[in-house]
Amino acid sequence: MAQVQFINGQSLSNIPWQEAPEGIRNIPLWRYSGNPVIGRNPLKGVARIFNSAVVAYEGTFIGVFRGEQTNGIPYIYLGCSEDAIHWSFNEERIQFVDEDGESFMPIYAYDPRLVKVEDTYYVIWCQDFYGAAIGMAKTQDFKTFIRVENPFLPFNRNAVLFPRKINGNFVLLSRPSDSGHTPFGDIFLSESPDLTYWGKHRHVMGKGSEWWESLKIGGGAAPIETSEGWLLFFHGVAGTCNGYVYSIGGAILDIDNPSIVKYRCQNYMLTPEEWYEERGFVPNVAFPCATLCDADTGRIAIYYGAADSYVGLAFTTLNEAVQYIKSNSVVTSIDTEIGKR
Amino acid sequence: MAQVQFINGQSLSNIPWQEAPEGIRNIPLWRYSGNPVIGRNPLKGVARIFNSAVVAYEGTFIGVFRGEQTNGIPYIYLGCSEDAIHWSFNEERIQFVDEDGESFMPIYAYDPRLVKVEDTYYVIWCQDFYGAAIGMAKTQDFKTFIRVENPFLPFNRNAVLFPRKINGNFVLLSRPSDSGHTPFGDIFLSESPDLTYWGKHRHVMGKGSEWWESLKIGGGAAPIETSEGWLLFFHGVAGTCNGYVYSIGGAILDIDNPSIVKYRCQNYMLTPEEWYEERGFVPNVAFPCATLCDADTGRIAIYYGAADSYVGLAFTTLNEAVQYIKSNSVVTSIDTEIGKR
Amino acid sequence: MAQVQFINGQSLSNIPWQEAPEGIRNIPLWRYSGNPVIGRNPLKGVARIFNSAVVAYEGTFIGVFRGEQTNGIPYIYLGCSEDAIHWSFNEERIQFVDEDGESFMPIYAYDPRLVKVEDTYYVIWCQDFYGAAIGMAKTQDFKTFIRVENPFLPFNRNAVLFPRKINGNFVLLSRPSDSGHTPFGDIFLSESPDLTYWGKHRHVMGKGSEWWESLKIGGGAAPIETSEGWLLFFHGVAGTCNGYVYSIGGAILDIDNPSIVKYRCQNYMLTPEEWYEERGFVPNVAFPCATLCDADTGRIAIYYGAADSYVGLAFTTLNEAVQYIKSNSVVTSIDTEIGKR
Amino acid sequence: MAQVQFINGQSLSNIPWQEAPEGIRNIPLWRYSGNPVIGRNPLKGVARIFNSAVVAYEGTFIGVFRGEQTNGIPYIYLGCSEDAIHWSFNEERIQFVDEDGESFMPIYAYDPRLVKVEDTYYVIWCQDFYGAAIGMAKTQDFKTFIRVENPFLPFNRNAVLFPRKINGNFVLLSRPSDSGHTPFGDIFLSESPDLTYWGKHRHVMGKGSEWWESLKIGGGAAPIETSEGWLLFFHGVAGTCNGYVYSIGGAILDIDNPSIVKYRCQNYMLTPEEWYEERGFVPNVAFPCATLCDADTGRIAIYYGAADSYVGLAFTTLNEAVQYIKSNSVVTSIDTEIGKR
Amino acid sequence: MAQVQFINGQSLSNIPWQEAPEGIRNIPLWRYSGNPVIGRNPLKGVARIFNSAVVAYEGTFIGVFRGEQTNGIPYIYLGCSEDAIHWSFNEERIQFVDEDGESFMPIYAYDPRLVKVEDTYYVIWCQDFYGAAIGMAKTQDFKTFIRVENPFLPFNRNAVLFPRKINGNFVLLSRPSDSGHTPFGDIFLSESPDLTYWGKHRHVMGKGSEWWESLKIGGGAAPIETSEGWLLFFHGVAGTCNGYVYSIGGAILDIDNPSIVKYRCQNYMLTPEEWYEERGFVPNVAFPCATLCDADTGRIAIYYGAADSYVGLAFTTLNEAVQYIKSNSVVTSIDTEIGKR
Amino acid sequence: MAQVQFINGQSLSNIPWQEAPEGIRNIPLWRYSGNPVIGRNPLKGVARIFNSAVVAYEGTFIGVFRGEQTNGIPYIYLGCSEDAIHWSFNEERIQFVDEDGESFMPIYAYDPRLVKVEDTYYVIWCQDFYGAAIGMAKTQDFKTFIRVENPFLPFNRNAVLFPRKINGNFVLLSRPSDSGHTPFGDIFLSESPDLTYWGKHRHVMGKGSEWWESLKIGGGAAPIETSEGWLLFFHGVAGTCNGYVYSIGGAILDIDNPSIVKYRCQNYMLTPEEWYEERGFVPNVAFPCATLCDADTGRIAIYYGAADSYVGLAFTTLNEAVQYIKSNSVVTSIDTEIGKR
Repeated sequence: MAQVQFINGQSLSNIPWQEAPEGIRNIPLWRYSGNPVIGRNPLKGVARIFNSAVVAYEGTFIGVFRGEQTNGIPYIYLGCSEDAIHWSFNEERIQFVDEDGESFMPIYAYDPRLVKVEDTYYVIWCQDFYGAAIGMAKTQDFKTFIRVENPFLPFNRNAVLFPRKINGNFVLLSRPSDSGHTPFGDIFLSESPDLTYWGKHRHVMGKGSEWWESLKIGGGAAPIETSEGWLLFFHGVAGTCNGYVYSIGGAILDIDNPSIVKYRCQNYMLTPEEWYEERGFVPNVAFPCATLCDADTGRIAIYYGAADSYVGLAFTTLNEAVQYIKSNSVVTSIDTEIGKR
Repeated sequence: MAQVQFINGQSLSNIPWQEAPEGIRNIPLWRYSGNPVIGRNPLKGVARIFNSAVVAYEGTFIGVFRGEQTNGIPYIYLGCSEDAIHWSFNEERIQFVDEDGESFMPIYAYDPRLVKVEDTYYVIWCQDFYGAAIGMAKTQDFKTFIRVENPFLPFNRNAVLFPRKINGNFVLLSRPSDSGHTPFGDIFLSESPDLTYWGKHRHVMGKGSEWWESLKIGGGAAPIETSEGWLLFFHGVAGTCNGYVYSIGGAILDIDNPSIVKYRCQNYMLTPEEWYEERGFVPNVAFPCATLCDADTGRIAIYYGAADSYVGLAFTTLNEAVQYIKSNSVVTSIDTEIGKR
Repeated sequence: MAQVQFINGQSLSNIPWQEAPEGIRNIPLWRYSGNPVIGRNPLKGVARIFNSAVVAYEGTFIGVFRGEQTNGIPYIYLGCSEDAIHWSFNEERIQFVDEDGESFMPIYAYDPRLVKVEDTYYVIWCQDFYGAAIGMAKTQDFKTFIRVENPFLPFNRNAVLFPRKINGNFVLLSRPSDSGHTPFGDIFLSESPDLTYWGKHRHVMGKGSEWWESLKIGGGAAPIETSEGWLLFFHGVAGTCNGYVYSIGGAILDIDNPSIVKYRCQNYMLTPEEWYEERGFVPNVAFPCATLCDADTGRIAIYYGAADSYVGLAFTTLNEAVQYIKSNSVVTSIDTEIGKR
Repeated sequence: MAQVQFINGQSLSNIPWQEAPEGIRNIPLWRYSGNPVIGRNPLKGVARIFNSAVVAYEGTFIGVFRGEQTNGIPYIYLGCSEDAIHWSFNEERIQFVDEDGESFMPIYAYDPRLVKVEDTYYVIWCQDFYGAAIGMAKTQDFKTFIRVENPFLPFNRNAVLFPRKINGNFVLLSRPSDSGHTPFGDIFLSESPDLTYWGKHRHVMGKGSEWWESLKIGGGAAPIETSEGWLLFFHGVAGTCNGYVYSIGGAILDIDNPSIVKYRCQNYMLTPEEWYEERGFVPNVAFPCATLCDADTGRIAIYYGAADSYVGLAFTTLNEAVQYIKSNSVVTSIDTEIGKR
Repeated sequence: MAQVQFINGQSLSNIPWQEAPEGIRNIPLWRYSGNPVIGRNPLKGVARIFNSAVVAYEGTFIGVFRGEQTNGIPYIYLGCSEDAIHWSFNEERIQFVDEDGESFMPIYAYDPRLVKVEDTYYVIWCQDFYGAAIGMAKTQDFKTFIRVENPFLPFNRNAVLFPRKINGNFVLLSRPSDSGHTPFGDIFLSESPDLTYWGKHRHVMGKGSEWWESLKIGGGAAPIETSEGWLLFFHGVAGTCNGYVYSIGGAILDIDNPSIVKYRCQNYMLTPEEWYEERGFVPNVAFPCATLCDADTGRIAIYYGAADSYVGLAFTTLNEAVQYIKSNSVVTSIDTEIGKR
Repeated sequence: MAQVQFINGQSLSNIPWQEAPEGIRNIPLWRYSGNPVIGRNPLKGVARIFNSAVVAYEGTFIGVFRGEQTNGIPYIYLGCSEDAIHWSFNEERIQFVDEDGESFMPIYAYDPRLVKVEDTYYVIWCQDFYGAAIGMAKTQDFKTFIRVENPFLPFNRNAVLFPRKINGNFVLLSRPSDSGHTPFGDIFLSESPDLTYWGKHRHVMGKGSEWWESLKIGGGAAPIETSEGWLLFFHGVAGTCNGYVYSIGGAILDIDNPSIVKYRCQNYMLTPEEWYEERGFVPNVAFPCATLCDADTGRIAIYYGAADSYVGLAFTTLNEAVQYIKSNSVVTSIDTEIGKR
């Protein structure tokens, strides 16, 4: 198989990295040996950090973090790191403002994603909008975070932007569903010319017939542009008599029409097997939220939430991930159609 | 109380009408004595017509009707009438096409609404879009029905357009919720400059503390522009140990900022009390879908679905309806705020 | 079988009455041919009256009535009648006061019972006490209604006093359960020396193995003192795939230790079979709430709620009712034990 | 279309009959104008008879009837009739014995079917076998009813025998499911050489994509042998927010391999539309249980339970029923495969 | 902040104790380093001890322990200890008698609390009383345990006495709810002059808007009398897609009117973070049941159940606990009102 | 107590074995110190092996293993071992054929049991048969596995054969239930003369009143023939607010009429207490599937699934197991009756 390439990729020589361990591996991802990289009570008043996103920024790393306060309510906190492994956090939660600069804070905010499109960084999260819904803000300096209109009506979660416009429009993945501990959910895509009005909604992919993703799925890290298409790490959920199990899945979407799934890996890419994934506030959760990529080496570092209690880090290479997805791909007509009804 | 006026109202001298019956009435609406106006098996292959909408059109009346086929699956049928009481229907369901004129039929379609904005008629309904969602089409001649983009992601129902643009945008009420027999739901409002992209979503009103609407609410007939604001007949649902009970409610929204509720009637305007409302495929349903209004007399005729089996007709006057709503109005801060979070 | 006698019975020559109809009857009760005796919208602002209780009072009749307002919220209304069939109602709901004479109204109040103990009349109902709970008030003139302490913690419904003290204590039946449309519930008994503190709680009877009462049971009319024991008309509920069915049951409790069930009729005494019982706000409900008795003739008139929409009236005689219960009695060890654990 | 013939059909000149009414009909069955043929409280101690089966027998008619006692518990009663419309019943429930002639009564028994195979009549019903399960007995004289082994483990309902052996084996349709108000269920087929041991289980057909049968299905009347295959009237169930709706469906199975569905009507054949079908102990139920057929005229009389409260009677002809099924047939691969996995 | 004082406090120089660990702490409680203090299979026939209560007694310590037998059924066992850390248990469960000295054992008994009022020790627990309910017994010598009347009707759990009478009455906190794994519950208070009759029920506090206690709450250790009011350690429960999470909360009630909440800590005081709290028969449970207090030093030792499998021990000081509660207090009108409706 | 003997037992000198540990034990089983004997990712493409069965075979050991693939779907794999502790597996799943030798693979297959009857080995498992059902195959060489007819209609799980015919018939235990995470289930027994047709179904035992088995029970290892009767290790399930807990139970069935329970241990024999039982894909599961027995020493080795993630091994002796069961036996009339209704 020819080498897969990042498109619009950046060199990131300080990407965190460990080589794959020896021995038989059943999955194309491997865990960082120092996991969890963020443990309990990481800052004053915050019990747990998880389901969080990072980017490379001016030679170091910066991130937006779901910080579960000791009252149980989540907000988004800013953190920075020299090595993307050891993080320091602002004690103050991120202050969002409206377009007039007035404070405009959500009642709560969780599961943030962080994506750079052109010269601006976008934070996308889940918040209350008379129901669980997507919130979004933009920043260029990580000091001022200006909220834009909520893109969708409730009930929606797990939204993430593509890192560039497609056909002139912003493109946003999301997972419409309902309130509560939703037992269903598919990934959809929507477009916007201006980040105010959204439309051309398309269905991307639904839950799978494989058991690890047979209950519901949802978006994860921002799609990665590659020579094979958009590489997407998402989450899939199995339902057992003792609760949900969240695993990491992988798929590749068409570059120009990303509502079309080209390849979809029938196997999980990583599933809860370590104590920090199996034990915690919500046991059995591995929930991907962000990646770092080094265009020179093909290395990919994946940040994932573990048991709603920790941040874990896993590694793979572009080649190994794409090859594994393609080798184990099963797509259905619902995956590969344009998703319009 | 000064007389309320229709704004942008039309004369409709052939509006169906009966005077209110004698005796104590607890509600400002009264039923047509010949109810149900559409009975069982009204046309070949269609078991029941209900939850349907009509407009005055070129001196007669035309409507879009939820026709439940004998396989149980609903589609939308066209009907016409001289008196808005006796209807004849096309045996063929409405044929929707895309913008290229190609057939573009939903898998199923139900609960249509019919609204004229400027020189075009819009049909809005609920259909499958990988989940229950809003479908929409436009027509100018009731021969060609061209679908526009689905305005929202699933899961959504009970959408209805305002009969004119506000601040240059189309405005659409909808009721986001989930799949299945949803036990919750609020009314939201969204704007669009072009019927393709939608945004500026705002919360309008939630379920009420009164018991008749304490489970969920949803939009009904298109808002009626009046000198007091937008008059809205919606439905509210109570949950009993033996199922849901759907009643008709009334509210008045701010003319310029219709996400603000000015008055909201704490009492139902009509509730199931007759055999054709209490007995049928879904017992205990009175579900408002359309109105006809005569600007000269202030008369309003309300079409409502009955027990998911019949079409019922009720009457009121603008003055009586508005006065009753205002006299019995209870609004909360959630009703009267702009609905942005 | 020897004749059964009322104990402490009163002559009530103007008790409403019809003779039993001809033909085979499967039950010892028969319906009044003019049912329902209270129809829809019986007074301004009240949509339905049902689940209500009456007593003979100074040669006429007086009652406390669950009036469902047009906002769906129930309160208790006072009504009076010359013949116990045609009722006139106060438009104003009953005004409850605390012991200092200050207004002390429940947020809502439903399913009132009315029992005279010694020289005082007691109203017992269900209301919000941070959950559904029993409320109680006393009156001697039907003008001033003074609330006493709520006897129990929530969640409780269907409470009714015995018409005299037993062993010097007031005795109250109730049906502890939970919030919502409870799928379980047994009848318990509690004592109080002073109507402020309650204790010596005992289990009286649980749901039955017969299907008509296999989901739950609850108290109904106040127990009637007879030479055979306390005659109790209660309700039993069956669960079907299309909802609950409420029927009237009958049992006889020990005179001195009324937590002991002497006889319990395995058959319902009346079950929904008429349109006003099968169709309405809550279909399939026959719910006994009060009796009138004439000691001279043995006649019993039973008032019952029908479909949460109407008041129905049924008749029997003491002899026929008791004989039927005894002839069809099945008691279990749980019924007949003292009910203490 | 050529005329369809009964195979192994009998002349039955006294089959009950009415011609189809005038006017547009949406279904190939029409109701008897005197419905319900069995009303409430048909015999002492029995509140309702429904979901029952009849056969022609020695020039008159005989049947097994689900009699719901006034304690709500069902047993099977014997009835006979001269005209198959007016029925008289034994007050005593049917007494079942084991092969040694000892009494062997089920705790309860409901929904009996009655089928003649060779020279013996078989009663098949649902009973408790540590869970809902199929019971079966045989009789040759309608005096002695000898139980055979319960054919299946629980949980199972709606079983009915084919009226002749196929390939030397008895063949039984059943609907395995669970306890309670099951929200799912398919029809299976099993074979037995001796009515003691059963095997070669095959899947016949599952719930349909049409909405009237989208929740579950189950067997109904015994299959009728015709020149087109086995004509099966079964029931299909839709789920609404206010309960289940049971309709009558029709299908034609392969004569030699009846687990293969040749035709399956996508429309219901009859659905609740009359008061006695929509109102009762379980509203909205039309539940087919037996047919009478006249080989000379092609007439078919269908007995069905109505609202778990009544017995209804409907008519069709073999030609009209089969033609309607074939004209509206939609079969899936799951229907048409042999049903072995 | 001035020093807080115990009221009616005792010196307890042998209270178990460890100083707080170094480093940032997010909570005012810290765990004993030797946790769990009671491990699996602590005595013959008992698999797990947890949710148990202790008191200082004659220079040593004594306690009542929920012992889960190897058949899964809980009873209450007596244990004693020199240091309140290492416990020895009676193999025989506690033998309860009635007032006549006859054996009067509950069918099962769990979650005991132990409180001294005046010269008597009271055990309060949960047991079957035809449903989960409160049981109570008194002892003066820990040899004879005499049951008093069950104070309340079912369904109720988590009851605990105040350690002295208030206004001449015993005062009992409890948590009325339903059967099963209740998803709701508030804390109420009731009074009794004689431990036989109970009344003057008042609502104390409901579930919180903070997420850690957003599902339900319930009483825990007996209130501690302090100069700031009654210090209450209770439990709050969050609901996740993988089960409930039980944390320890803190509040301060008014000394004279303890249905009034003066301060309520919006943050948990301790939440499951250790393996013995996160893993076990019921994962993610920290459930406070008793405290020991030393009036000289202000030390408080808190006994809590861990994962329904272990007993854990945590420490704080009166000053630190109260200061933390006050600094983080959020009270609502429902908390601070008298709780009478 | 006299020594218990194996009937038809074999010498198995290489049975895996460890002596019981010192100290108080609450249960008659003890775990292998090297547990789990099969860990995560034991072979390429298989994430977890658990709920599996082994037999002694030609001086070594062979087994059928539930291998959960990395797509989450289970199939059955063959493994072999010299010491019954260290296992090597075929990478290819077992290939089943029909009686004609054609491939006949189930869509999925899990929880296999392996039993030798006469000269043939039978694999019994759970698979899709239009619902969860029992699949069965036979082999004599562990190379060719020929499927026989599915013995039962769905829904059924946990089937296991007796190791010899009884009264000339094969005998099979199974646990009929429904789809999904069934909250109920009893053990039944069925007979077959030919493995094609099954009948004479009998109820063996239901869930217990003890809490560890109060939700449901199901078969486990094949019954062991002993001088006291058939020794059965089964599983019992408790329901907590945070999920099901699966323990190992023990009973002894009558040798000739094994639907009669002679002894049933009211205590569990082993319950989840170790990290590999409490933490994993399904926490809190100990699920017995197979035993090895040495007739010379009375040693029994029990293989059980742990947390749906591992294989655990536990030991006991015939004497200790039987003695414990008999000493702690509680049987009900439902257990001891013949199980026919």
